[in-house]
Amino acid sequence: MASINILKFGVSSPSDTSPLNQLKAAGFSPHDILAVIGKSEGNGCVNDFSRTLSSRVWEPQIPRSAVTVFSGGTEGVLSPHVTFVVSDRSTTGLRAAVGRTRIIEPHEIGTSVQAFEVASSIQSILKESGVAIDQVRLILIKCPLLTSEKVEIIKSSGMPPVTTDTYESMAKSRYSSALGIAIALGELEEDGLHEAMWSQPCWSTKASCSSGAELEDCHILIIASDSSPGGLRAISGYMSDAIDARAITRLLEQVDRESGHVLQVFAKAEADPTGKIRGNRHTMNTDSDIHSTRHARAAVGGLLAGLVGETRLYVSGGAEDQGPPGGGPLCVVYRVAP
Amino acid sequence: MASINILKFGVSSPSDTSPLNQLKAAGFSPHDILAVIGKSEGNGCVNDFSRTLSSRVWEPQIPRSAVTVFSGGTEGVLSPHVTFVVSDRSTTGLRAAVGRTRIIEPHEIGTSVQAFEVASSIQSILKESGVAIDQVRLILIKCPLLTSEKVEIIKSSGMPPVTTDTYESMAKSRYSSALGIAIALGELEEDGLHEAMWSQPCWSTKASCSSGAELEDCHILIIASDSSPGGLRAISGYMSDAIDARAITRLLEQVDRESGHVLQVFAKAEADPTGKIRGNRHTMNTDSDIHSTRHARAAVGGLLAGLVGETRLYVSGGAEDQGPPGGGPLCVVYRVAP
Amino acid sequence: MASINILKFGVSSPSDTSPLNQLKAAGFSPHDILAVIGKSEGNGCVNDFSRTLSSRVWEPQIPRSAVTVFSGGTEGVLSPHVTFVVSDRSTTGLRAAVGRTRIIEPHEIGTSVQAFEVASSIQSILKESGVAIDQVRLILIKCPLLTSEKVEIIKSSGMPPVTTDTYESMAKSRYSSALGIAIALGELEEDGLHEAMWSQPCWSTKASCSSGAELEDCHILIIASDSSPGGLRAISGYMSDAIDARAITRLLEQVDRESGHVLQVFAKAEADPTGKIRGNRHTMNTDSDIHSTRHARAAVGGLLAGLVGETRLYVSGGAEDQGPPGGGPLCVVYRVAP
Amino acid sequence: MASINILKFGVSSPSDTSPLNQLKAAGFSPHDILAVIGKSEGNGCVNDFSRTLSSRVWEPQIPRSAVTVFSGGTEGVLSPHVTFVVSDRSTTGLRAAVGRTRIIEPHEIGTSVQAFEVASSIQSILKESGVAIDQVRLILIKCPLLTSEKVEIIKSSGMPPVTTDTYESMAKSRYSSALGIAIALGELEEDGLHEAMWSQPCWSTKASCSSGAELEDCHILIIASDSSPGGLRAISGYMSDAIDARAITRLLEQVDRESGHVLQVFAKAEADPTGKIRGNRHTMNTDSDIHSTRHARAAVGGLLAGLVGETRLYVSGGAEDQGPPGGGPLCVVYRVAP
Repeated sequence: MASINILKFGVSSPSDTSPLNQLKAAGFSPHDILAVIGKSEGNGCVNDFSRTLSSRVWEPQIPRSAVTVFSGGTEGVLSPHVTFVVSDRSTTGLRAAVGRTRIIEPHEIGTSVQAFEVASSIQSILKESGVAIDQVRLILIKCPLLTSEKVEIIKSSGMPPVTTDTYESMAKSRYSSALGIAIALGELEEDGLHEAMWSQPCWSTKASCSSGAELEDCHILIIASDSSPGGLRAISGYMSDAIDARAITRLLEQVDRESGHVLQVFAKAEADPTGKIRGNRHTMNTDSDIHSTRHARAAVGGLLAGLVGETRLYVSGGAEDQGPPGGGPLCVVYRVAP
Repeated sequence: MASINILKFGVSSPSDTSPLNQLKAAGFSPHDILAVIGKSEGNGCVNDFSRTLSSRVWEPQIPRSAVTVFSGGTEGVLSPHVTFVVSDRSTTGLRAAVGRTRIIEPHEIGTSVQAFEVASSIQSILKESGVAIDQVRLILIKCPLLTSEKVEIIKSSGMPPVTTDTYESMAKSRYSSALGIAIALGELEEDGLHEAMWSQPCWSTKASCSSGAELEDCHILIIASDSSPGGLRAISGYMSDAIDARAITRLLEQVDRESGHVLQVFAKAEADPTGKIRGNRHTMNTDSDIHSTRHARAAVGGLLAGLVGETRLYVSGGAEDQGPPGGGPLCVVYRVAP
Repeated sequence: MASINILKFGVSSPSDTSPLNQLKAAGFSPHDILAVIGKSEGNGCVNDFSRTLSSRVWEPQIPRSAVTVFSGGTEGVLSPHVTFVVSDRSTTGLRAAVGRTRIIEPHEIGTSVQAFEVASSIQSILKESGVAIDQVRLILIKCPLLTSEKVEIIKSSGMPPVTTDTYESMAKSRYSSALGIAIALGELEEDGLHEAMWSQPCWSTKASCSSGAELEDCHILIIASDSSPGGLRAISGYMSDAIDARAITRLLEQVDRESGHVLQVFAKAEADPTGKIRGNRHTMNTDSDIHSTRHARAAVGGLLAGLVGETRLYVSGGAEDQGPPGGGPLCVVYRVAP
Repeated sequence: MASINILKFGVSSPSDTSPLNQLKAAGFSPHDILAVIGKSEGNGCVNDFSRTLSSRVWEPQIPRSAVTVFSGGTEGVLSPHVTFVVSDRSTTGLRAAVGRTRIIEPHEIGTSVQAFEVASSIQSILKESGVAIDQVRLILIKCPLLTSEKVEIIKSSGMPPVTTDTYESMAKSRYSSALGIAIALGELEEDGLHEAMWSQPCWSTKASCSSGAELEDCHILIIASDSSPGGLRAISGYMSDAIDARAITRLLEQVDRESGHVLQVFAKAEADPTGKIRGNRHTMNTDSDIHSTRHARAAVGGLLAGLVGETRLYVSGGAEDQGPPGGGPLCVVYRVAP
């Protein structure tokens, strides 16, 4: 598992790969890229072609072993950008490892099969790279969804799809991936999976899962801290609800105490499924014009951008099993003076 | 001008008038109502019938002289609610006065005629109520917009409409109202109006204007502080941009210093017209699925709700001439211990 | 069961009740109204407050025994309007009867309980009014949906909601109502209901069901033809898919053969659940910006309006169990020369 | 100017280039391609990345001299597909020629400069290819729009943009292109351009213009009929309003009279700017959730698909100066038995 650095740059459109020049100017080569994590400016839902476009233009530019994770939706103040995770020859204090599951068949999407594939892929990656579970700060996953065509493929094979609603399949897929992370990190027992899927939700604060039509397998990125010296740090936490400013300031205060500088924040956001936040009604789940994931990104993005003072943040929508219901995981990567 | 109190309550739908019961339980009568200010859960744009529905159900319940200001759009975490401004027999430290302009004819909407009507109505209200300009903390205005039918009425009379785009007419109307406020408050000279309309934008931080299809005149509410003792205070400020958390915390710190308790925050929000926030691109002005006012309310609402710790806040979209471009005015009303 | 007449008038907004004046000018009294059927201009989905607004303004104007059926969504060329079903002292050839179910409890919405309540209410209405099943041309139903609050009520009582997705609850409610119609019309056996709900879809071409947040019970309107002489006729048919122009022209040709004049067309439309129309892909089920019911109304409304030559048509979205999958029922009411 | 053939194929996504295989199976080579005209499944508005994605994947596959015209928006029943215009060695009865203008600078977009550039490019293409004006059946143009960044570029150079509303810039650009076509076809005098732009709208029924963020110049495709024998024909007409079924059936009847088979229909659609269709109100211009071009495509697409019996049709939104206001141009390409 390589020592890594993290750099982020704005993009002028989903097809803009000019950040490669900025990466080179910063002394890195495209060969160093382990992952490109992007916020692209589509709707972040089923028909978000900004994600597909970004994957298409970026994948020929990066090593075959590298992964892309494009999360759609830059609602509100959020700014489209890419974050590079690159190998660094020097010891930085942070490490990363990437991998992929096998292709998830249409009828497996959003099921325990996907959860197990994710879990076992993460376990392999961790083993190969020699990272201990307690060093893991964040596991980012990009996973497939059900299109109308995939629903028909499932039906024509006589199986019941987990859902026929393509938007809802995004949530099912995120949830399966997150359970896979929970199993891999020992937060959930394998034989508790069935219950977790149906009746006893559990959650992980290291999981950040995003689904899309642009891929068939799951892309996995693990960011871990290293006991070795170096200027990079990552700390994790979670928002208890979508207005939990305290969860954010607590992490930012730790960065301040170490005189650090925030490089990136990774957050997930969702509309509270109860329809209320601290006792007051929200309307994200009854708005038939804008899906709740778009609302949630806009609101949590506004809060995070205000507190961090910058809008190129990774805020992704739909936090099923990723942090407590209505809340979501947070991971702050920062640099301290050497 | 009466001493006033401010109370707010959640609503279960745009037609919910049950907060009247809570008002009575708090010792007030519907006759005491000067204004009902609501956030209703429509799109906040041209075809927002939640505003019309709320106006319809509330207006028969309140005195004829009272005004309603319903602002649509509870994107993200914002919670639908109503804020009552009620006369209070005791001295509270805050005063309010309300009024209406004459009907604004279709061809006058969004023009200097509307600005002058607003200005002269405010001047009359201030004079009658004996409030000095420097006591004014906030002027809330609800003003009309252009529907397809009004555009046709204008055209058929041979006049050019200020715009044929009904959504854009909302901005023009807000802008005219805000200039009217600026004139009334002495922030803009009357003969500077023409320039302000066309080339030299000016702005007021006391102005909060919202447009809608549910009315033909402009509803005006003025909140002012009083030199007399009492437990209520109002302080004004403005956000320099949509992520200006500092502007909010500065006001909240003052509330804290006085051991106060926030009753309500009134804010306006908009997408920066340059397409950038602190140098980074936002996509609110190029999103053809969601209008920029919806994005802006969601993001600023998320930030404010996080910092205040509550989601029943008045955050309205479209801040033309209300605070600096890309930012918007803030007014915090709070109660201190007696 | 009264002999009836049918009149329709455009509205200038969801709160426009001026068609009452036109009704009076045509020689009818508001007391004659059996039903007000409207197309209002909201999104036709969960948060369509144009329907609530219309119900609110119309219900005080009509007899207590009369029902309202407001269907939201005038996408594309469709024109907002109301259709009055009024008692006519003379024999017209058409009859109608109206009624309501009891309140459908949150946990009953979208279940077989709703289907049975609808079925038994229709059976009572038919019995009382002496209408035979084979005279029925159309049964219009307006039925409730699940809001976030209703979902929470169900959950807090320990029951599983049929869905937690408020938009999907509209489809479940329409489907239950349509099955109730099928039972009442003898198209489905009562003990086939469970299978129909879960595995063996059946459909009725007389059913037209629309759901909304503006009511708690189901409103029922039955239109039937009469063997007595008179100038009004109603004929039913169904579109096999959303581009089945032939189904429409066949009915219009019959009107032509009788030298008739179309008074109103009642249609339901839906996105083909297979994602294809005549072998070619459509994108209504993967568009996360616009719900499929909106797409379907716009497309079928465009086709019908073109063929009928008029845009004030009742085209409602979501045709579960109402006509074949991807298609929907049609009912043409017309007048022939005496 | 080559004799051409026209073939169309469905696509499974905006990045699907598999129709190339079908083209080859039909006996053509990618080298034969003059133009790829597509309907892609984005919103057809400013942030439609499905168009950009399609351009990106198709342009490397076709000759440098060929052009792409991707029109976004497959609302309602419309099916995503591509239409190939290919050179045919045999005489077919139809000819085509393609070309490009120079890059249109941001401050030129939507102005008379763009109109003149389009006009002179068309004139050159016609001259080179030896096509007479009266042989032209359709001129398809894809032209640029204003993004937030382009608006800022214009402003920073001290010029006033034609609009600061990015969605509105699409209409301005279409209008300029259509005027350019009108000049080139002798329907508008060059010195009447200024008046046409500001006060005296004129229109062409051969013009079909679509704007997008995916290009900087204008792509031009001219389809003309040939006096030579061959099985392909093209006939033009126009819809007087959005429900003008008669205009369509008139063309289809001519195809029938010649025992022809429709290959493709090219249509433009728009919301009537008066807010009415045949005297009845429509709501396309006051719907702040769905832009009017989306509504218009869905409705006219529904009508055309019903009448033609097929959903892979080219229906594009925004018909400024392309057919009469509220209507739009039609061009039917068909094959007759040899």
